[in-house]
Amino acid sequence: MPQSAARASETRQWNRLMDLAEIGAIAGNGVNRQALTPGDRAARRLMVGWAADIGATVSIDEANNLWLRVEGSDASAAPVLTGSHLDSQPKGGRFDGAYGVVAGLEVIAALHDAGIVTRRPIEVVAWTNEEGSRFAPGCTGSMSWAGTHDVHHWDEVRDQEGVYYSTALAEQMKAESDLPRRPLGSKPYAYVEAHIEQGPILEAEALDIGVVTGIQGSRWFTVTVSGESAHAGTAPVSLRKDAMIEAMRAILALSEAMHDPEDVLRFTVGRLAVSPNASNSVADSVTFSIDLRHPDTETLRRRGDTIPDVVRAAMRACTVVVRESFHADPLAFAPAVIDQIEQAAHAAGFSHRRIASGAFHDAQFAARVCQAGMIFVPSRAGISHNPAEFTSAAQLAKGTEVLLRTVLALAG
Amino acid sequence: MPQSAARASETRQWNRLMDLAEIGAIAGNGVNRQALTPGDRAARRLMVGWAADIGATVSIDEANNLWLRVEGSDASAAPVLTGSHLDSQPKGGRFDGAYGVVAGLEVIAALHDAGIVTRRPIEVVAWTNEEGSRFAPGCTGSMSWAGTHDVHHWDEVRDQEGVYYSTALAEQMKAESDLPRRPLGSKPYAYVEAHIEQGPILEAEALDIGVVTGIQGSRWFTVTVSGESAHAGTAPVSLRKDAMIEAMRAILALSEAMHDPEDVLRFTVGRLAVSPNASNSVADSVTFSIDLRHPDTETLRRRGDTIPDVVRAAMRACTVVVRESFHADPLAFAPAVIDQIEQAAHAAGFSHRRIASGAFHDAQFAARVCQAGMIFVPSRAGISHNPAEFTSAAQLAKGTEVLLRTVLALAG
Repeated sequence: MPQSAARASETRQWNRLMDLAEIGAIAGNGVNRQALTPGDRAARRLMVGWAADIGATVSIDEANNLWLRVEGSDASAAPVLTGSHLDSQPKGGRFDGAYGVVAGLEVIAALHDAGIVTRRPIEVVAWTNEEGSRFAPGCTGSMSWAGTHDVHHWDEVRDQEGVYYSTALAEQMKAESDLPRRPLGSKPYAYVEAHIEQGPILEAEALDIGVVTGIQGSRWFTVTVSGESAHAGTAPVSLRKDAMIEAMRAILALSEAMHDPEDVLRFTVGRLAVSPNASNSVADSVTFSIDLRHPDTETLRRRGDTIPDVVRAAMRACTVVVRESFHADPLAFAPAVIDQIEQAAHAAGFSHRRIASGAFHDAQFAARVCQAGMIFVPSRAGISHNPAEFTSAAQLAKGTEVLLRTVLALAG
Repeated sequence: MPQSAARASETRQWNRLMDLAEIGAIAGNGVNRQALTPGDRAARRLMVGWAADIGATVSIDEANNLWLRVEGSDASAAPVLTGSHLDSQPKGGRFDGAYGVVAGLEVIAALHDAGIVTRRPIEVVAWTNEEGSRFAPGCTGSMSWAGTHDVHHWDEVRDQEGVYYSTALAEQMKAESDLPRRPLGSKPYAYVEAHIEQGPILEAEALDIGVVTGIQGSRWFTVTVSGESAHAGTAPVSLRKDAMIEAMRAILALSEAMHDPEDVLRFTVGRLAVSPNASNSVADSVTFSIDLRHPDTETLRRRGDTIPDVVRAAMRACTVVVRESFHADPLAFAPAVIDQIEQAAHAAGFSHRRIASGAFHDAQFAARVCQAGMIFVPSRAGISHNPAEFTSAAQLAKGTEVLLRTVLALAG
């Protein structure tokens, strides 16, 4: 069966991405479609409809991961799995995650159009809550599936409105009770995820494709500084237990301590909440997040391990609690999958290079279950987690062409 | 008519304060009853009911200030006005504001019980939105009444959920459409406000009563730091426009610049909001409040005027806008009212001293319309704007006794 018989459609793929981007659209071409929201549900319904058009079977598992499946000729063969996520950051773009799911759909649509049946089944998955912006940490769907944690591990995690992850998950499962269920966990032959680079390298080097060699490691911490509320007009400054000022001291001390002359270590405080958050009350509590990433296991461990001491040293009258909520070591993808992607890019005539991922992805957890790899397409100016995120229809189509060739090679 | 004929009831006053404290009760004996909320409305309804019990007439003005009035024997005489506010901080106590309103009610209740009619009418007012925690600045009710600003001046101010002040005000006016209206603005003979000290001085010196000589000045600022959102895993730290880190730099620089070796200047950053506030996104915007107070007009002006430069100097890659939302110069109360309160405390046999107010109060604006003064009672450990705020029933009763004697003396 000649590979040239199957053609991914640049136009169909772009139109579907734009249809998805209308769900949760925000100013500046952005998307706010956080996990387990009505927008997330609406996006999944679009996907279910498109899957039905090509006769793919749809199911969901206990972690609300959404699965589309087309059968192969060998009923006993392990499937080739591709996909990504449909949830976005609160001020996210149109391509992060959604591209990988739509590209996976485009692969099975192209095979359907060409009447091609592979030996192995092909599955397309939309993982639940990759972003972790509403419910931290991210990748709870792929972690539940990979068995790194039980699906109930995050039951007590709450969003900023106080809604529990377990409640939001149950609500979404109920809203999708018409969809067939499949067991959580499976053993694919391989996993390949297409994604935008979210960094500036491919664009800067004018390349079509990034053959991803691995993902840098991530550690997430939550820091809570506790002081005492007091009246802004009466409490002498010298006697205050001001959680705001001491949290600021801690964050700036961390910013200095995490300085990396090579600019490889990524230190971010992106989320911060103040209590009571009134202009004329001294803050009694400030909670903030730390996101730390590095491609080297040992460096990530060593730098991250200093965080509690740095924070404690910044305290004067307040107390502090540091909790680590997530720790993923750097990951190297399977050489066989890396080679396969590289060959596919070469055969398609696209320019390419090997590249490490700065962002983490569901592929990080899929790689614990089977051989895995990722395909990157360029991100304009490296901008992501931002409405200005952009990759052209032609660039996205090239990534999908490589994905199609890779999936075909793996599925036989 | 002997003053001794009228007796304020310690028990009734305490019970009413505890009844009010049940509305919006939070953990640790605290109260969250912010302005123009359902809790605020419920508290006002309690007050209306108690006023009806003693035949006081009830009305509201266009700023939603709530007025209780008992007539005097001289229909042409300007009234003596007392009162305070019923709204609280989000993590407030049971006495800040509510005490002054209930004490005013207790004064007219005691006169009613004793069958005493003064020459001048007596009015008790509950001013709208003194705290300014939901809608900044505070004292919008008393400012509207005093004519320092039009009642529509704050129409565009929004709370943290995005609700406009004008919308919340209209909603509350509608909910109270059964109450008679009175015109905004009036010309009382005098204004006297009873309040907890919200500072540690009276307790430390074991005194019953603070005869308030004036209120320190306040300046409120809102600072918005603007950067650019980016992916926490991919954006090199050196290239970021990180609004979080630069806001922290600004706040710590301000904290140092506002240091006062005499510990009289009060500098507070109590409110801070981050956008998009996601742990894996670099912040594109941070907005924070500054509350600055000092008893000396010139010092307050000089120190406050340096704020924009200090903030700008702290920026690296971000931009910043500093807006001043409130500026009240220090205020001296009317010597005649100060003397009257002092005499009343002396005649009642209570220990007392003259004291300056660290907090601002509605009396600050009433003082622009008529002679005004304030009576302080001790605050345990000086704690306020905190559920732990406490003044005993006996201490509160002493303040009300002084208020009763002062109002009687002023009302003739």
